[in-house]
Amino acid sequence: MALRVGVVGGGQLARMMIAPAVELGVELRVLAEEEGMSASLAATAVGDYRDAETVLAFARDVDVVTFDHEHVPQDVLQTLVDASIPVHPGPHALRFAQDKLQMRARLQEIGMPQPEWAAVTSREELQAFLDGHGGSAVVKTPRGGYDGKGVRVVHAATEADDWFAALAEDGRGGALLAEELVDFSRELAQQIARRPSGEVRAYPVVETVQRDGVCAEVIAPAPRSSGRMADVAARIGIGIAEGLDVTGMLAVELFETTDERLLVNELAMRPHNSGHWSQDGGVTSQFEQHLRAVLDLPLGDPEPRAEWSVMVNILGGPAEGALEDRFATAMAAHPMAKVHTYGKAPRPGRKVGHVNVAGEDLDEAVYQARAAASVFLD
Amino acid sequence: MALRVGVVGGGQLARMMIAPAVELGVELRVLAEEEGMSASLAATAVGDYRDAETVLAFARDVDVVTFDHEHVPQDVLQTLVDASIPVHPGPHALRFAQDKLQMRARLQEIGMPQPEWAAVTSREELQAFLDGHGGSAVVKTPRGGYDGKGVRVVHAATEADDWFAALAEDGRGGALLAEELVDFSRELAQQIARRPSGEVRAYPVVETVQRDGVCAEVIAPAPRSSGRMADVAARIGIGIAEGLDVTGMLAVELFETTDERLLVNELAMRPHNSGHWSQDGGVTSQFEQHLRAVLDLPLGDPEPRAEWSVMVNILGGPAEGALEDRFATAMAAHPMAKVHTYGKAPRPGRKVGHVNVAGEDLDEAVYQARAAASVFLD
Repeated sequence: MALRVGVVGGGQLARMMIAPAVELGVELRVLAEEEGMSASLAATAVGDYRDAETVLAFARDVDVVTFDHEHVPQDVLQTLVDASIPVHPGPHALRFAQDKLQMRARLQEIGMPQPEWAAVTSREELQAFLDGHGGSAVVKTPRGGYDGKGVRVVHAATEADDWFAALAEDGRGGALLAEELVDFSRELAQQIARRPSGEVRAYPVVETVQRDGVCAEVIAPAPRSSGRMADVAARIGIGIAEGLDVTGMLAVELFETTDERLLVNELAMRPHNSGHWSQDGGVTSQFEQHLRAVLDLPLGDPEPRAEWSVMVNILGGPAEGALEDRFATAMAAHPMAKVHTYGKAPRPGRKVGHVNVAGEDLDEAVYQARAAASVFLD
Repeated sequence: MALRVGVVGGGQLARMMIAPAVELGVELRVLAEEEGMSASLAATAVGDYRDAETVLAFARDVDVVTFDHEHVPQDVLQTLVDASIPVHPGPHALRFAQDKLQMRARLQEIGMPQPEWAAVTSREELQAFLDGHGGSAVVKTPRGGYDGKGVRVVHAATEADDWFAALAEDGRGGALLAEELVDFSRELAQQIARRPSGEVRAYPVVETVQRDGVCAEVIAPAPRSSGRMADVAARIGIGIAEGLDVTGMLAVELFETTDERLLVNELAMRPHNSGHWSQDGGVTSQFEQHLRAVLDLPLGDPEPRAEWSVMVNILGGPAEGALEDRFATAMAAHPMAKVHTYGKAPRPGRKVGHVNVAGEDLDEAVYQARAAASVFLD
């Protein structure tokens, strides 16, 4: 009987688990939000992930439940746990990915380096935080933000009035997260794989380039990251994976400050855009690794296969026509580029695919990956 | 609209096209022989590939038809061509893979190096061939043989009597193929990708180790193959791809003789066991390349990513239980090994999976791949 992994959510992360699942011989089952999503080839059910009965019915026939995203409500997750269905990552870990205030508090408890922060419940409290931090702050809604949504750089406390008003209307006594505006030289990401039985493996720390709050490019390993900094990043990643009991893939987004410290920015408890390079440049892709980790199988080698791997996202896609209309042009000019698409219709800003290039020359790999990805844009 | 490739046959070669199809964003549709085959995830139809109506109905909704095997009858192929459905490789090429006498005759016409051979229709003609070749020969049924079936080494003409009797019964005036028993030092395989529009790419020549007529191991590139020999092998492969108008992937099995010549043994016009290494050790896997070639898209880089890639087949599998029962043992001991399984029940001699290891040290890669594959055997 094949091992069966159930994935809640039918987006591109679930889609990219299909290839390693087929190769290894794992049966992947996807609960998709609707028909025709990225992972539709593996969709065995369509339904609302916020509905406990729907998720429970889906989960009854699998060996482990895992996720394409972190939005499954705690009560739904708890229903699975109560039914003795293995869930990885578990609800006790996922709550730190679902709520940024809980994350900051927990990271503080376990002594992880992070920006200064505060929970602010009013314009006055935000003003006090601004006063203490040079008049600027990053304000975040604790829940539901991603890809730059729910995140705002503010220089006056009034700039979060709408969010405070929403909190007051909600009436549950919530707060916003105010963070110090970090003076960073670049952004990095550290991926960790961890099994329920405790085995842990660190991928090389990578450099990520964000545009408009969205990941645009990744270089693996991060240039000038050998030695101490790679060790520090891996130790932070492993500390968080263990401290928060994360199972499966964990991504830790980091700021490298101008004074060479690493501070934790965000967490993701699933395969992550910063690890797509591993599909073509790693011994074990993050998607294979996630399946192995959630099945509590021994982890694969996280080392790169090439000196450098570069990933460039295809953001938006062409204004007219489909991505595949550009395959011939991209492939003819860039025979070493690996094109990945997600079966999603082009739309401004949308992640519709990515290009990986691995090689021995970083400048060449960056050039080829950017040039190949740009073929798919207007 | 996604590009749609229809594959006739639901075996492991069709299965291994699923991963690159999903990643690239090509819709793969498989006509499987029955339910529950290796490629069942992509099966959109189940039916008899020898029935023209079945195959035509399947083919009407795809952009190109290709194959998991070479057994689709010529009249069925011709029905597709007559309906203006692109078929790659085409019937005019496939007939040389379907009939070894036609292949030998065609290779002779285009001047390819091959063992001495003859079409023999009787015990007497076989005796004459034996007399001219030191008393030994390889006798093959021209059609239907694979993995050592339909192939016999004979030292007396009477040893093919049953095959001659079958020919007489068949009454269509057929012949057997008699070939010189080549004194070879090792076996090699050369893979070529070729598009309908003519672009051609040669993979590195590899060494194959056969056991009982079945491929057991592959080393890519073939040790001691740099320079002249690799060039000769690539030239032979390209010459055959062009001379026989093969489209998609072509595998040319070669003998390296003790006096350092290369002679063509067999042809396969599809992805081939000798190219499985490319899934983890190549820039462009043979399965992605096949899809690109049959869609007439520009071909990917066929170069290896690592110094050495080693593939070891899992032949038979465990006597009791399933392959996945051994995953934990294999993965714990061999974190760099990539395990591929085909969703097939273990059975003596059956190809049920393979292991790839890529690395800089050949001895280590061979050791790791063999050891990991052996975990799945008793």
